[in-house]
Amino acid sequence: MIIIVDAMGADNSPDVMVTASVKAVKEFGVNIKLVGREEEIKKVFAANSLPQDGIEIVNAEDVITMHDEPISVRKKTESSLAKSLAMLKNGEGDALVSAGNSGALLVGATLFVRCIKGVRRAAMAPVMPVKGGLMMIVDSGANLDCKPEMLEQFAVMGSVYMKNIHGISSPRVGLANNGAEETKGTELYIETHKLLKQNEKINFVGNVEGRGLPLGECDVAVADGFTGNMILKTYEGAGKMISEEVKNIFTKNIITKIGALFVMKGIKEFRKRMDYKEIGGAMLLGISKPVIKAHGSSDEKGFFNSIRQAVNLVETDVIPQIEAAMEKEENNA
Amino acid sequence: MIIIVDAMGADNSPDVMVTASVKAVKEFGVNIKLVGREEEIKKVFAANSLPQDGIEIVNAEDVITMHDEPISVRKKTESSLAKSLAMLKNGEGDALVSAGNSGALLVGATLFVRCIKGVRRAAMAPVMPVKGGLMMIVDSGANLDCKPEMLEQFAVMGSVYMKNIHGISSPRVGLANNGAEETKGTELYIETHKLLKQNEKINFVGNVEGRGLPLGECDVAVADGFTGNMILKTYEGAGKMISEEVKNIFTKNIITKIGALFVMKGIKEFRKRMDYKEIGGAMLLGISKPVIKAHGSSDEKGFFNSIRQAVNLVETDVIPQIEAAMEKEENNA
Repeated sequence: MIIIVDAMGADNSPDVMVTASVKAVKEFGVNIKLVGREEEIKKVFAANSLPQDGIEIVNAEDVITMHDEPISVRKKTESSLAKSLAMLKNGEGDALVSAGNSGALLVGATLFVRCIKGVRRAAMAPVMPVKGGLMMIVDSGANLDCKPEMLEQFAVMGSVYMKNIHGISSPRVGLANNGAEETKGTELYIETHKLLKQNEKINFVGNVEGRGLPLGECDVAVADGFTGNMILKTYEGAGKMISEEVKNIFTKNIITKIGALFVMKGIKEFRKRMDYKEIGGAMLLGISKPVIKAHGSSDEKGFFNSIRQAVNLVETDVIPQIEAAMEKEENNA
Repeated sequence: MIIIVDAMGADNSPDVMVTASVKAVKEFGVNIKLVGREEEIKKVFAANSLPQDGIEIVNAEDVITMHDEPISVRKKTESSLAKSLAMLKNGEGDALVSAGNSGALLVGATLFVRCIKGVRRAAMAPVMPVKGGLMMIVDSGANLDCKPEMLEQFAVMGSVYMKNIHGISSPRVGLANNGAEETKGTELYIETHKLLKQNEKINFVGNVEGRGLPLGECDVAVADGFTGNMILKTYEGAGKMISEEVKNIFTKNIITKIGALFVMKGIKEFRKRMDYKEIGGAMLLGISKPVIKAHGSSDEKGFFNSIRQAVNLVETDVIPQIEAAMEKEENNA
């Protein structure tokens, strides 16, 4: 298996991409093609005396930054991102991991690698820790304006993902909404509810209110990209806010610091479970080959886990299964 | 000052409304008109040997339940909710507090009490605890389909509220959005951004991502009702999920229980600060008289604090100030 790694364009590029790749080669026995400025990448190998076994460096002189427009991926053909996508398209690797510009990755993946046949639009689909397990949010920001049929496809694709990657036999699909009744929400949500209810390929559990999402009421939360993004980020912000407060409580004085020692193990376990870096990145659900968007601020652990996720995607044949689900849908229609 | 209290239609009706009203009369020196089934209300007084000083019971035989359609407020003229609204309209009280059906309260307030002159639509505006203080979300579910001009009014009205009720001299107004750049978001948000930027009556700090909301990046968060509801409820759910986990960590075994004793004071203070019952309910922002929607599941403390909020609204002249802000807006236009 060959994983293509876009080494540039993220906060910690290319250092983190290099060290995480070396670790991944060792751990997963895969080959990696590191795409980026050869000179900079080589410097990281040298500075850390890292072995280059299983790793090929593919030079790409240009970089798409976080501030570039998504469409820049079309013009900047010599960028690490555009080159990585071209390589994936040409079969020079089995999956792609990038921590670069999300918009450019999405536009590039759609333009060059293309969507799975029948898929209207690809979605950004991160998985987050919730009460009792994990939940995928689809879409989390790729498509701000959605149609009911798009949300229905997100539901089907998300179900295939959660079944294969996280072993949930019949993932509960929830439609994010402002109330449980099927007449709740905007026109988009009322129409989507009808489609999801009729769809026999998914286990639809109905509307799920914001409150029920962190409380684990579904395994796949379906939403338009704007709403999904607000859910995801508000949840992240709440976690950060509360964990800061708890830290303040524990570090207030000598008494509280002693108290902290008694519960440190539990707190650490919980923090580890809530740490999105442990899960990896967001899959570009609907693209015809595995593409993982790692966090722009990924550290080595985060990027390493995103590579792990890419390896899992290839090993468990998620894309062919999504293709199969979409074919059936086309036949039904 | 006379506060009209809708005693029926909530989870703990009329018990909680009665006991909270007795407490409020004593604490704030106000008079209260308790509207609901006289017989049931009297039973609560008798069973708890409560004094009826300052409290007048207004009989209303009918009840609007949580399952009734919002428009039922029009037909059920003998319901406690419809009667309470009619009394407010007729000047038989200075403010209204209800823990009943949100939709019916909103529709009824709009139909009977009416919006402030110039206000297009009333919004549901709860205040939630965030890092370093409090934040109002407006709208949190009253208006699923919004126009930019509506969101602009929400911003102005929310600013007046936070200034007067929570003493923030120049409330920072943030537009909830999926990115900081002014070109982010759907058409509605791009257009609203332009209006907020030009509006000299508010302190607009730009788009605020979901992550920044719990982290206290603004005092007034502006959003359409669907998005605002998802933000509010996701935040609530995250708080509940994390507090449950922390509780589990503390109660795991004898060692952790000892540890808990050392930090109990800090945890309790934090829980109190995060407890929405301490803040009260959600104001119906834009209605021409003070209307507070208390949580449907209000306990005595929660309902008492909602009455406190109503008293504050009257004392600080929030409505006349919103009226003044709206007049100026009309003149500008």
